Amino acid sequence: MVGVMSERQNSLNHFYAVIPAGGIGSRLWPLSRADAPKFLHDLTGSGQTLLRDTWDRLVPIAGEQRIMVVTGRAHRAAVESQIPELADLNVVLESEPRDSSAAIGLAAAILELREPGVIIGSFAADHVIGNRPRFKRAVIEAVAAADAGYIATIGITPTEAAVGFGYIRCAAALDIKHAPSALAVDSFVEKPDLETAEKYVSDGNYLWNGGMFIARADRLLEQIGESDPALLAGILELAAAWDTPERGAVVDRIWPGLTKIAIDYTVAEPAAAAGRLAVIPGDFDWDDVGDFASIAKLHASGRKSDLAILGENARVLADSSSGVVVTQTKRLITLIGVSDIIVVDTDDALLVTTTAHAQRVKSVVDALKLSGSTDVL
Amino acid sequence: MVGVMSERQNSLNHFYAVIPAGGIGSRLWPLSRADAPKFLHDLTGSGQTLLRDTWDRLVPIAGEQRIMVVTGRAHRAAVESQIPELADLNVVLESEPRDSSAAIGLAAAILELREPGVIIGSFAADHVIGNRPRFKRAVIEAVAAADAGYIATIGITPTEAAVGFGYIRCAAALDIKHAPSALAVDSFVEKPDLETAEKYVSDGNYLWNGGMFIARADRLLEQIGESDPALLAGILELAAAWDTPERGAVVDRIWPGLTKIAIDYTVAEPAAAAGRLAVIPGDFDWDDVGDFASIAKLHASGRKSDLAILGENARVLADSSSGVVVTQTKRLITLIGVSDIIVVDTDDALLVTTTAHAQRVKSVVDALKLSGSTDVL
Repeated sequence: MVGVMSERQNSLNHFYAVIPAGGIGSRLWPLSRADAPKFLHDLTGSGQTLLRDTWDRLVPIAGEQRIMVVTGRAHRAAVESQIPELADLNVVLESEPRDSSAAIGLAAAILELREPGVIIGSFAADHVIGNRPRFKRAVIEAVAAADAGYIATIGITPTEAAVGFGYIRCAAALDIKHAPSALAVDSFVEKPDLETAEKYVSDGNYLWNGGMFIARADRLLEQIGESDPALLAGILELAAAWDTPERGAVVDRIWPGLTKIAIDYTVAEPAAAAGRLAVIPGDFDWDDVGDFASIAKLHASGRKSDLAILGENARVLADSSSGVVVTQTKRLITLIGVSDIIVVDTDDALLVTTTAHAQRVKSVVDALKLSGSTDVL
Repeated sequence: MVGVMSERQNSLNHFYAVIPAGGIGSRLWPLSRADAPKFLHDLTGSGQTLLRDTWDRLVPIAGEQRIMVVTGRAHRAAVESQIPELADLNVVLESEPRDSSAAIGLAAAILELREPGVIIGSFAADHVIGNRPRFKRAVIEAVAAADAGYIATIGITPTEAAVGFGYIRCAAALDIKHAPSALAVDSFVEKPDLETAEKYVSDGNYLWNGGMFIARADRLLEQIGESDPALLAGILELAAAWDTPERGAVVDRIWPGLTKIAIDYTVAEPAAAAGRLAVIPGDFDWDDVGDFASIAKLHASGRKSDLAILGENARVLADSSSGVVVTQTKRLITLIGVSDIIVVDTDDALLVTTTAHAQRVKSVVDALKLSGSTDVL
């Protein structure tokens, strides 16, 4: 047993956590904005931002010297104020958003150069995860699977027929040392309709896709290269210049031309198709807090009639109402007889919709963009 | 015919219009406030306040020297700024609200002392009336009925089974000179439920109670005295002091002790019971704009799917939504998939409800009063 423990410890010693902190979270407008993206908000009522929650969850696994944050230049100050412990070396700044393949690929390439053989794990900055011990156990298994050569992901055991998440269809158990619950992945499936989601949940072979990827950096890069050789070449050129005086010039030259594509398409799906993907089922609470309906659900804890209220200075008077109120103002908000309502109150914009329409917020943001109303985006 | 016209003209020569501008309009909170009552708002989108609309409607009937406004001391400046033409002599200021019997009774008593035999007509400051020629014709008949000794009211021919209004049950035609359409009044009935309202409308003998009363001032005071002798005594003492240096002292002593009661109970109902009430059916558009649902209805002009937007700086983006948005701010208001919604956006308070719950706004105001939240009232 001592041997086993130290071997596990060895895998974890090579582990580096990467937090891509990029997405604005358009479905959470007008709370989330270009200058105040989702990860800089407290959506759980915990009293701290989702980014800080993510950091606090990863420190006991990776240690605070081994967590890298990839974020936009505009967010540098906010990120550093959220995580004063974050070392300069662990901040990767994007000059503009190029999606997750570029962000995570660059982190992997930088870390691989600094520390050959490193295992990286990518964890979104803006998800909510409960039960940290279970999360940690799943990550440790995923790191073991990565150490064994797999690209590993953590899938979350569904608690309901959610239509807002992607699903992972699991296949047979893999026999991976120190990763006893690892399964092969048959395929990834996009957000289903309710009927399909219900089938998935009753089937028992489907997990929610939590978007967490754990792999040896060299394997991850290899997979990106198979999918998009030009993207890999760009990433490697950037990484080679990163810790040199050439960084700025190379970023200016290379970064804007990188393919803008999610890591799901360059890594997860092709790795699954090639039998290189392992999934560790996680039985912790998880939510990507993708829209206001999921905030309402998070806070209602299953009580349909509840009204969730978020906001430091919230002053709400509600009569026969349910849903969620998010406020950044000190105004008195009065609700009468509105069920499943979403009210988001900010200084310059107000949103009123219902939980059933929460996903449509994104299309309103798109409409505002098109109409040039960028002052409120 | 010349003789008839001049006789009519004679009645109208004795006519004085009184506008009690008192009610806050609690059902229109947070738009209506103690310091910004309903009559000081533009609820029709006409570009001017309801008070100014009322003034403009009465000037062609009474003349601008013969319209008296009874209002609270706090509203003096606002009223005078709305109606620069208003003569000082025609402003009666209440030190505190004592309801309509005191307000209209005092106006009647002051005017009767100044001009014995005067006929007064009381018209709410915060109702919406369309088709002014028809309104004028009804008032002229009512003045004729008043001249003949009746206490007259104008009832509005219902256009739908409204549950938000009181009704007047009409009896036989009265044979009054120059008031050919005058009917006796059987009784007043309070706001009915929908089934009852439908019966009223199909019955054909019911009119909406528009709260307009036209009578010789001496008859009106006599009726108040029959109902509440102490109230009449107080009113007469106030009126006697009004145009003297004693006014202030007498107001301070008498006004706060006057019975707080609506004129419906001291005048209209007892006069109807005694056969002294005449009703002139009016076929003009009328609404008391009692709540936000009626604002929505006014603006929708029958189109159920419409979203009415009120506010000088309104900036609204609506997707599959109907109802009414009233805004006093410059914020962008976005609605997605909310039907029959009411959104009222002010600097310090926001209301979200539905047209079906519009009447419940008053109870929220009551709750705010009780909880001491007077900063937003």
